[in-house]
Amino acid sequence: MNQDQLKIPHATAKRLPLYYRFLKNLSSSGKQRVSSAELSEAVKVDSATIRRDFSYFGALGKKGYGYNVNYLLSFFRKTLNQDETTTVALIGVGNLGTAFLHYNFTKNNNTKIEVAFDVDPSKIGTEIESVPIFHIEDIEKELQKRGITVAILTVPVGSAQTIAEQLERAGVKGILNFTPARLTVASDIRVHHIDLAVELQSLVYFMKNYS
Amino acid sequence: MNQDQLKIPHATAKRLPLYYRFLKNLSSSGKQRVSSAELSEAVKVDSATIRRDFSYFGALGKKGYGYNVNYLLSFFRKTLNQDETTTVALIGVGNLGTAFLHYNFTKNNNTKIEVAFDVDPSKIGTEIESVPIFHIEDIEKELQKRGITVAILTVPVGSAQTIAEQLERAGVKGILNFTPARLTVASDIRVHHIDLAVELQSLVYFMKNYS
Repeated sequence: MNQDQLKIPHATAKRLPLYYRFLKNLSSSGKQRVSSAELSEAVKVDSATIRRDFSYFGALGKKGYGYNVNYLLSFFRKTLNQDETTTVALIGVGNLGTAFLHYNFTKNNNTKIEVAFDVDPSKIGTEIESVPIFHIEDIEKELQKRGITVAILTVPVGSAQTIAEQLERAGVKGILNFTPARLTVASDIRVHHIDLAVELQSLVYFMKNYS
Repeated sequence: MNQDQLKIPHATAKRLPLYYRFLKNLSSSGKQRVSSAELSEAVKVDSATIRRDFSYFGALGKKGYGYNVNYLLSFFRKTLNQDETTTVALIGVGNLGTAFLHYNFTKNNNTKIEVAFDVDPSKIGTEIESVPIFHIEDIEKELQKRGITVAILTVPVGSAQTIAEQLERAGVKGILNFTPARLTVASDIRVHHIDLAVELQSLVYFMKNYS
């Protein structure tokens, strides 16, 4: 399938990493095929949605047989660029940033935090999980040297916009923003925003209105 | 508007807390009206989506005038139950859990972490940001005593399912799950799952395919 022509819906695209991880576990355990019902139970997505999602990839399950695990897996690996590791920078080594450094991303995903930045003199020059911590003023130098274009932003909200502009100058094209700030950056930079307060409030709203 | 009849699309519902927070800031700064273009710029949602979202609430912006900030705000406050504070339990006081305790949820949202749990003897009996930390075996007792039905789960993946079952017995109806585990719980319990690895991989995927 031609990557350039593959324009699947956003909601489907967001579920790909989830499917991929589960299929990888299935394959490791020697399983050859999987039904949409089994997948549904494991990834907590209803099976009609799974069947529709998979139809976009040209994967059509057979009745009474299900999907071929290895076919799906090789498709997802290609689609998700699992054959190459994406290196990532972490900006802000507070509690949340430290949690990221201890999180073993590479176990199930080919993404790897390669370098971290902070302003705290007691952290600069040290390492956490073998990831070196530099001063924030070295962002441009270190990112360009390493060819890193993805950053996780876990700084205090007051510094978020300034640092986003620094990341822009450093050539970053994707930011995973964990601060409550809504960032203003060039339109060719993709920002995914995860706001812990919004997530919590959203859960409470859904509990009250959809249960 | 009758809450029972208000069944807005999930995607719209997820944006409500975001709109709410921005409108609250606008109102505090004395602003009386706002256009969908201004809102769009601030919350980073395209203005067509905002107009469609708002139409579900019966809020119709006037051309050249925009939306009435206070009308919207009072509507959102009611819809999001901002008049009552929702108390929340935090399970797992590692780096991620500690980040949550330091996060000032109540500033913009009427949700409040009231109690935390861990197994580390050096943490049990202490407080972080005035939130007391108990042993995980006290979950049922403490949650029932306090009438808490919402929990944030930031424990190691290996304990996630066991603790989810404990939360179920304690009467919890909503779990914000930050572990990579897909939880199996009773169908009347709402689980929102935020997987840091999936979020990172999703960002990389979108950068490569939608930029």
